[in-house]
Amino acid sequence: MSKLTPSQIEKALQNLPDWKLENEKLRKTYEFEDFVAAMGFVIEVAQLAEEVGHHPDIDIRYNKVILALTTRDEGGVTERDVRLAREIEEM
Amino acid sequence: MSKLTPSQIEKALQNLPDWKLENEKLRKTYEFEDFVAAMGFVIEVAQLAEEVGHHPDIDIRYNKVILALTTRDEGGVTERDVRLAREIEEM
Repeated sequence: MSKLTPSQIEKALQNLPDWKLENEKLRKTYEFEDFVAAMGFVIEVAQLAEEVGHHPDIDIRYNKVILALTTRDEGGVTERDVRLAREIEEM
Repeated sequence: MSKLTPSQIEKALQNLPDWKLENEKLRKTYEFEDFVAAMGFVIEVAQLAEEVGHHPDIDIRYNKVILALTTRDEGGVTERDVRLAREIEEM
């Protein structure tokens, strides 16, 4: 699984609303009604991440959750990150 | 509830192992065996935070969890943050 090229990432982002490429990571900020709703989302993401064996960085800021996806071994975004982003969108 | 002075914070930190003051926040990094253990800790912290109505910033990095506590209304660390840090330590 190798690092995607900028144009491959750009293409993948077309089908990933509000995901952005920042510092070699796919990043999205989700906003919820409150902390409890945000935590519900985090728990769901965590279960999915554990199932697929790929774990996003997760930052919780009260009702906001920032996810960041990268493949450390490749030093950037791979198909694995794109796939997990898609799966999170489909949750 | 007003902002604590640097010496009040320093005193409080003496009883809060590995907590540090950084950018007007009390911060600590916890390390666990794996992601599942880290998430277990996050869920426990989240329940406590919701109970006391004070919510730390929570950053999850696979098996590491970084907590940061501040009181936004006061622009810095208050007794409320110190109390929550203590309660997290006692969990």
